[in-house]
Amino acid sequence: MAEKNGSVTVFAGFVDENLVEDVEIMSVAANGHQNGNAEMGLVFDNNGKEEAEAIPSSVAFTKAGWYADVSTDGPGKAHLYKMEKTLFHGKSEFQDLFVFQSSEHGKVAILDGFLQLTERDEFAYQEMLSHLPLCSIPNPRKVLLVGGGDGGILREISRHSSVEEIDICEIDTMVIDVYKRFFPDIAVGYKDPRVQVHIDDGVAFMKSVPQGTYDAIIIDAFQGMGATAKELSDKDFLESVARALRPGGVLSTPADSFWSEDFVNFADTVANCRKIFKGSVNYAWTTVPAYTSGIIGFMLCSKEGPTVDFKHPINPLNQENYGVAKGPPKFYNSEIHTAAFRLPSFAEKAIGFQM
Amino acid sequence: MAEKNGSVTVFAGFVDENLVEDVEIMSVAANGHQNGNAEMGLVFDNNGKEEAEAIPSSVAFTKAGWYADVSTDGPGKAHLYKMEKTLFHGKSEFQDLFVFQSSEHGKVAILDGFLQLTERDEFAYQEMLSHLPLCSIPNPRKVLLVGGGDGGILREISRHSSVEEIDICEIDTMVIDVYKRFFPDIAVGYKDPRVQVHIDDGVAFMKSVPQGTYDAIIIDAFQGMGATAKELSDKDFLESVARALRPGGVLSTPADSFWSEDFVNFADTVANCRKIFKGSVNYAWTTVPAYTSGIIGFMLCSKEGPTVDFKHPINPLNQENYGVAKGPPKFYNSEIHTAAFRLPSFAEKAIGFQM
Repeated sequence: MAEKNGSVTVFAGFVDENLVEDVEIMSVAANGHQNGNAEMGLVFDNNGKEEAEAIPSSVAFTKAGWYADVSTDGPGKAHLYKMEKTLFHGKSEFQDLFVFQSSEHGKVAILDGFLQLTERDEFAYQEMLSHLPLCSIPNPRKVLLVGGGDGGILREISRHSSVEEIDICEIDTMVIDVYKRFFPDIAVGYKDPRVQVHIDDGVAFMKSVPQGTYDAIIIDAFQGMGATAKELSDKDFLESVARALRPGGVLSTPADSFWSEDFVNFADTVANCRKIFKGSVNYAWTTVPAYTSGIIGFMLCSKEGPTVDFKHPINPLNQENYGVAKGPPKFYNSEIHTAAFRLPSFAEKAIGFQM
Repeated sequence: MAEKNGSVTVFAGFVDENLVEDVEIMSVAANGHQNGNAEMGLVFDNNGKEEAEAIPSSVAFTKAGWYADVSTDGPGKAHLYKMEKTLFHGKSEFQDLFVFQSSEHGKVAILDGFLQLTERDEFAYQEMLSHLPLCSIPNPRKVLLVGGGDGGILREISRHSSVEEIDICEIDTMVIDVYKRFFPDIAVGYKDPRVQVHIDDGVAFMKSVPQGTYDAIIIDAFQGMGATAKELSDKDFLESVARALRPGGVLSTPADSFWSEDFVNFADTVANCRKIFKGSVNYAWTTVPAYTSGIIGFMLCSKEGPTVDFKHPINPLNQENYGVAKGPPKFYNSEIHTAAFRLPSFAEKAIGFQM
């Protein structure tokens, strides 16, 4: 696993070797924490023997399998999940993926040391990231997903019958393969015949897209809670996104939680997006218990052209049309769509104005 | 500390003895977990020596001070907070109170083993529990708070200039004293001259209230996330609350998180409240990262009489009138008030209808 900043190290074991292939067990490094002064050691042990001597850290978890997800809001908090079984741990050219069966939250996926999703609440994030943009424009036809290799966003796009083409650009085939194997209710999104998979780097792919191609672009690549992978949030990349959208087309991407200490700087992000997209720019949020602050943020931007009012969805989701999903949406409805844009006063203040 | 069901035991130390009085250190029992099959042991140790042999449990946290808040949603999840210093641990006739300085979330209070609040996000709960009812009726004059000995709800009621009398019925003077000592920005609520403190049992006090006395009653007594203390949620008690309200008067109380496994039974609670109060009955929620599912619920009920539409506040909070608080509200505004009643589809379904 690539060490991003080396500040947090988590050791994990408790592995069912019958299920695991190509895995370096007993060491999952959970990096990416932005504060360099925390060290956390985890030892999971399914034989009852302790591994404490192996831990170069201030905390040890012993005697049973618990996974610690260290907060991206600050090193003073972590979420612990009881592990029943490690299902997969592997490393691709790009990232480290760790999947375990938890006792109460279904299967849990950890990507480069960040909790990516739990089966218990993944639908909240997937549905909101997809339907906030797609229900804000009339008849979306061409949609691009950048990242999102798990397939959950594809599953949600699939509910929209107006959509004719769904392109996904995912860099890492390991993610796709592992989700197809362990998370069939999420990877089901790949079964939609409108889906075209492009295994490519998102930045490179975006440059190759003809101007004005897509009605909607959804970015589903982030590190930690809300912070979109750095290369996917810089100005050049966002300009290529704006270029790829038709006039009045929309972008949806995860964004910082307003509970994050970094949120005080969020006004800069909003200002940059306004300059690049020149249409509507809004911040929304929803509850996702799996994320350490309990919520995730979303940025919604429209390219200049026909006006988009993200707060008032004009294209209500047909609850009867499941697409390839197994049932109706569990989270999204038109009322929670509008509510997602209402912010607590301290968050409005951090953004610098009422959006 | 009273053992409620003995299912979860947490041992805590890491105590600054200069600050602590009347404390039985090294043992804080965290009970109240509803599932009997989890045992968790915590050892905090500021000398670096391990206490693992003292732990009758499946997990041990050693070598430094972390506090584990076990999820009320299920035993398979916990929140960990890094402790810098224990400030207080004491036991009254009624409950066990543990206060520590965390590394990133300010001071944290644990009541009978349940995380009650952190300084970092307490305002979200306090503001919403107070202003959802008080902003839904015109000119509230007489308000009763049952529980809420910390003073935070008093601080919020204090922002309402129409209020003439604020009664608080709190059973435990220890809670009041400890908050006044360690949480001055919360206990500041007691400085409002309209406040009358009644040290009494809430159930007994409520029976003594003349019929139709209060415009609003706020209950701030709960065990774990959202579950109001049992004796304060039974039918007899709620009937005494309804009796104490004037026609069209309102009740606000914390309620289960919709992410809780128990929420599937919430329709019964709603039905009971409808029978008892005979006015409007609504469920609302807000984000509070400190609670293990990331949110808390609220029940809002109005007594039959003048109609109350909780979803559309008619008595906007004057942001300029701080009362005894040190500044304007950080969380509450009229838009987040309305948004708090919008539910994800699975929660609407659990309640059995759209409220």
